[in-house]
Amino acid sequence: MSETNSQIWQASVLTLFPDAFPGILGQSIIGTARDKGIWSLESVDIRDFAPNKHRNVDDTPAGGGPGMVIKPDIAAAAIDSVASLDRPLIYMTPRGKPLTQKRVHELSEGPGVIVFCGRFEGLDERVITARNMEEISIGDFVLAGGEIAAQAMLEACIRLLPGVLGAAASAEQESFETGLLEHPLYTRPREWEGLEIPEVLLSGDHKKIAQWQLTQAQKITKARRPDLYDAYKAKGDDHEHD
Amino acid sequence: MSETNSQIWQASVLTLFPDAFPGILGQSIIGTARDKGIWSLESVDIRDFAPNKHRNVDDTPAGGGPGMVIKPDIAAAAIDSVASLDRPLIYMTPRGKPLTQKRVHELSEGPGVIVFCGRFEGLDERVITARNMEEISIGDFVLAGGEIAAQAMLEACIRLLPGVLGAAASAEQESFETGLLEHPLYTRPREWEGLEIPEVLLSGDHKKIAQWQLTQAQKITKARRPDLYDAYKAKGDDHEHD
Repeated sequence: MSETNSQIWQASVLTLFPDAFPGILGQSIIGTARDKGIWSLESVDIRDFAPNKHRNVDDTPAGGGPGMVIKPDIAAAAIDSVASLDRPLIYMTPRGKPLTQKRVHELSEGPGVIVFCGRFEGLDERVITARNMEEISIGDFVLAGGEIAAQAMLEACIRLLPGVLGAAASAEQESFETGLLEHPLYTRPREWEGLEIPEVLLSGDHKKIAQWQLTQAQKITKARRPDLYDAYKAKGDDHEHD
Repeated sequence: MSETNSQIWQASVLTLFPDAFPGILGQSIIGTARDKGIWSLESVDIRDFAPNKHRNVDDTPAGGGPGMVIKPDIAAAAIDSVASLDRPLIYMTPRGKPLTQKRVHELSEGPGVIVFCGRFEGLDERVITARNMEEISIGDFVLAGGEIAAQAMLEACIRLLPGVLGAAASAEQESFETGLLEHPLYTRPREWEGLEIPEVLLSGDHKKIAQWQLTQAQKITKARRPDLYDAYKAKGDDHEHD
């Protein structure tokens, strides 16, 4: 692929806290990748689309109840201000589908994302439907807003873009890439507080080391994440029948 | 409870990117709560505990393989520099137990947390064991480091501290608090792009509204998160047998 501008991975973030971006996405390998032009960030202040001088974007929920709801007309105006370029429009919400490494790969292979960060009780359902928003959750807990969730999703995507991870690093052995949690890691010193590096890792026998790492990864996954382990086993069984 | 300093909820973050904190935790209701003295933040630079002038904190993994591993002696020195005050010591890693709203509640009811943010391939297993670190994951995807995950966990905890959410807001009706995802929300205008607010919500009949919201929450949870729905049903069945 030629290096044209249109191939920069583009992140547009719609938020009530535009100053929160890039935040940590401006640092580390993610920030360096932005400086190199591998990805770009556009931060849109939803409040700029409020019609009144008080810049209110929310109103009370229909039917009563606590909190405030972001108005559909204002949310839609903010969304419609962004050039879509066929990017998925994602709404970060605990009601969404849990983000997976598989979806992260898909998103990172596309042209980028448009991310809407909720605040208050949430967003009027009609704009979610009318703008075909993909609802994504980063986990079964509740945040004060979608900004940190958006940063998590963006960081996960951006680190997979070509040229972001150094040659020495690798995404392939990590948790979820193999369907297993990662095996334990050790480094120098050989003995620390009376604890030694497992001998097999110092043996130089690469086959034995790989076998030990796989066994450890299976053991940890089985103990901590029976759900992932069952899926891993099911996949393995499929292969056996191929 | 009397308002003494020791009852401030204390967050200590061990990181290679201390400038990333408070980040967005310095804004919104979370930042206001910090200004009010409801919680405090201490950011510790792991690199300050590197013994050499190059400030290296990592070394190659025992047994070979890609990436670098944070050295146990340096990680432990950084950890040991923090006054523990019986706070849980948490390591943010995709290998950890998935964070739940239940754990968030427990953490927010305690004295605070000490959070270790990993980078590179990860942390030497021996320090995880020797310092009894609780491994927590925010989701089944891989980040460039633990910083955003730490911010997610901290924000989830802090919003539950007394005095953080305004009187108008409420944590009780939200996703996970009832075991269900939240029902759809609507606000003015009554008609937008030809889409109307469901009539029941405008009826003023609070019993009917509550029933509609519950039915919607059940429907959405069943469709999107059969795992949560099954747990919700099982809990309901338990009650029936009480």
